[in-house]
Amino acid sequence: MEIKKILLTENEMPRQWYNILADIKMNPPLGPDGKPVSPEALTPVFPMNLIEQEVSSERWINIPEEVLRIYNIWRPSPMVRALSLEKALGTPAKIYFKNESVSPPGSHKPNTAVPQAYYNKAFGIKKITTETGAGQWGSALAFACSQFGIECKVFMVRISFDQKPYRKSMMAAWGSNCIASPSTETRAGRQALEKDPDTPGSLGIAISEAIEAAVTDETGQTRYSLGSVLNHVLLHQTIIGLEAKKQMEKVGEYPDVIIGCAGGGSNFAGLALPFVYDKLNGKEIKIYPVEPAACPTITRAPFVYDHGDAAGYTPLIPMHSLGHNFMPAPIHAGGLRYHGMAPIVSQLASEEIIEAKAVTQLDAYKAGVAFAKAEGIIPAPETNHALACVIDEANKAKEEGKEKTILFNLSGHGLLDLAAYDKYFSGEMKDFSLSNEELIKSEEVFADYPKPALLKSR
Amino acid sequence: MEIKKILLTENEMPRQWYNILADIKMNPPLGPDGKPVSPEALTPVFPMNLIEQEVSSERWINIPEEVLRIYNIWRPSPMVRALSLEKALGTPAKIYFKNESVSPPGSHKPNTAVPQAYYNKAFGIKKITTETGAGQWGSALAFACSQFGIECKVFMVRISFDQKPYRKSMMAAWGSNCIASPSTETRAGRQALEKDPDTPGSLGIAISEAIEAAVTDETGQTRYSLGSVLNHVLLHQTIIGLEAKKQMEKVGEYPDVIIGCAGGGSNFAGLALPFVYDKLNGKEIKIYPVEPAACPTITRAPFVYDHGDAAGYTPLIPMHSLGHNFMPAPIHAGGLRYHGMAPIVSQLASEEIIEAKAVTQLDAYKAGVAFAKAEGIIPAPETNHALACVIDEANKAKEEGKEKTILFNLSGHGLLDLAAYDKYFSGEMKDFSLSNEELIKSEEVFADYPKPALLKSR
Repeated sequence: MEIKKILLTENEMPRQWYNILADIKMNPPLGPDGKPVSPEALTPVFPMNLIEQEVSSERWINIPEEVLRIYNIWRPSPMVRALSLEKALGTPAKIYFKNESVSPPGSHKPNTAVPQAYYNKAFGIKKITTETGAGQWGSALAFACSQFGIECKVFMVRISFDQKPYRKSMMAAWGSNCIASPSTETRAGRQALEKDPDTPGSLGIAISEAIEAAVTDETGQTRYSLGSVLNHVLLHQTIIGLEAKKQMEKVGEYPDVIIGCAGGGSNFAGLALPFVYDKLNGKEIKIYPVEPAACPTITRAPFVYDHGDAAGYTPLIPMHSLGHNFMPAPIHAGGLRYHGMAPIVSQLASEEIIEAKAVTQLDAYKAGVAFAKAEGIIPAPETNHALACVIDEANKAKEEGKEKTILFNLSGHGLLDLAAYDKYFSGEMKDFSLSNEELIKSEEVFADYPKPALLKSR
Repeated sequence: MEIKKILLTENEMPRQWYNILADIKMNPPLGPDGKPVSPEALTPVFPMNLIEQEVSSERWINIPEEVLRIYNIWRPSPMVRALSLEKALGTPAKIYFKNESVSPPGSHKPNTAVPQAYYNKAFGIKKITTETGAGQWGSALAFACSQFGIECKVFMVRISFDQKPYRKSMMAAWGSNCIASPSTETRAGRQALEKDPDTPGSLGIAISEAIEAAVTDETGQTRYSLGSVLNHVLLHQTIIGLEAKKQMEKVGEYPDVIIGCAGGGSNFAGLALPFVYDKLNGKEIKIYPVEPAACPTITRAPFVYDHGDAAGYTPLIPMHSLGHNFMPAPIHAGGLRYHGMAPIVSQLASEEIIEAKAVTQLDAYKAGVAFAKAEGIIPAPETNHALACVIDEANKAKEEGKEKTILFNLSGHGLLDLAAYDKYFSGEMKDFSLSNEELIKSEEVFADYPKPALLKSR
């Protein structure tokens, strides 16, 4: 019988994260004066130990023992051969996936939530604020904070807060407090509500709220935590790809194609970066981040300097951006409703080391349902976007009669997203694609900002 | 670092189920004439290959290759050391659990749903009907039927249907049809609605509906499937305990105490029966099924002959029963709201080989939240009942200063039960315990039935 799950023991789990900053060139983040931001300038927002990781150029960074201990709750995650999906598609391609849905919060997010909580705790921080879109990140940080006895406050994008009441309950089960964003608790939130009292919210606004709540806290013992985009977040996620490489080796395979959905970029990068390292060193491999057609940052938006949040609290960061006050359509994949893209992912795209794809919501859900029927697991709506690309690649392999090894990241399960599946089944789900007019308008906001240099890493 | 998860490879997965009927004595099921039921009499309800398993006395029964292939989606399931819970409790006890929540439907139920769908398919059956309480069983059968291309219709107990709308969505994702019970589609359902139009429903009524829908189907290609209670269901679930024994061996341990929640008895028995075999052969071991105080079949109800369903469609089976038309209080653990108990579990209890415990709903949720905070996983409400007993045992070990190895079955996760957790956190959750008056009244229904003989297996 063919082996379905390729497992690693806890002893085989990687002991270091891979830091791609050792291997590529990057534009620096800029302050309000247009000059590179000093690490010290970030200390009201993040603890210094995480800032050091953010700017480190060491290729390998040790994973603390206490983090490994908590990773062991669900890691190493299985790499699974999608034998039934292959059969259903009649494809000659081999399809493998990393099953990141096995963590207690149900996604890849705790890979960084746990070390972030750890480093905050080590730095003496008592409370962490954050934003969440679909709720995957908020619940992951709630879980991580419960492991370290840290208080946690989550600003959840209104549309997801309403669509997914049980994400709040999960956070409550782990002892965290979750409120809808925009809220009246922050200046950024009140401004957004004044502008549009019925706003569905956005990750950009929620980030502003969470940063403001952290830096205005009078105890000085509160910091902010971000679930994607930043270098140290992507660093922590590389555990996925590092495990995947070991697992691929175990079955004597190497992927021809790597696929992950991309909102802020962390689950995609977590799987892809260790393979990007190989590509930088000459390996032939296709690497596809997949984004929603409703929020197509890499595929349609320019590579610019822009703020990471709606209120402009963050430094200017070099990334593909639809503009920091872009309001994405209310697609049922909250984790992909972000105006920007991780600087590392943006840089790799600008160098054509990776090649982004965009898919529509209905195509994504269609792929997700085909996967659920074949493989049993009901994927997160975000993951469905990756799956649309996987099935496309598998069908291409069939047409071309080519054997091919596809590896994708099953970033999370959809058990808290079943209301969205109901809409899909009932035919109520709408499709959204960004119009050219919206795109042009969205670019006004960063028109006068500095432009990132076009760098070549190889 | 201490190992947290004890894993088996797919090749190490047991290739046979353990059939305890080879090792204990049982009273036979009786027909309306008071005489033992012949296997042939059951053919309108079940396919013959499953009836043969129901009555087999072979100790070891081969698991078909096609079933193993689908088990591989999530099995072997991890055995996990609850190191953080041990630490939180400050207990000298070692606490291990089988994590059955890792299956796509999120519980132990597919362990039998998959072989049942397989044997029905092998027998040429095109459609399966069933009932479900909390929805764990219905979604497991929906998953299994989707793997074999069989149509599936689920009658879901009204109170759970209303409390847990997303269980329906899961079944829809796998292509099954789920309706609330009592329904107007069956005579049994219509009778129940006439008696009480606002009834919350019960597993007993839903079973009647599903059996009626199967046996009245004119194509002759529909059969009924039960998710607990019956011998062949418990047989399939022994994969849990058989894996656990191998995993215990790997770490050089053997449990002193085995704990599982018990509604119909299948997750408890699945873990316990392979250890009962050892106990029958002289091993010292405590084995505790844990039931809700609101529906205390083993701890309070007598060992009698009674019907498995409300309408009396099933044969009389020897079991602890609160009466086949008992209406359990609306506790948030739908899988434990059953008037009876598996004949095998009832027989073992009557021989004092196992010793049942009962816990209240609030104690169960308290234990579940303590577990979620320590171990990350949010348990199913049913599992919380086992956890209340686990924590009690761990605390006893602390008081007595005794080292002790506890093994329990984490039968499922609670991600589809978060509304119930919300009620617990808000203080709205009520406690229920069966009163003596209710108990005495419940016994009227089987007062005139034959009585099972008191048999001794050792």
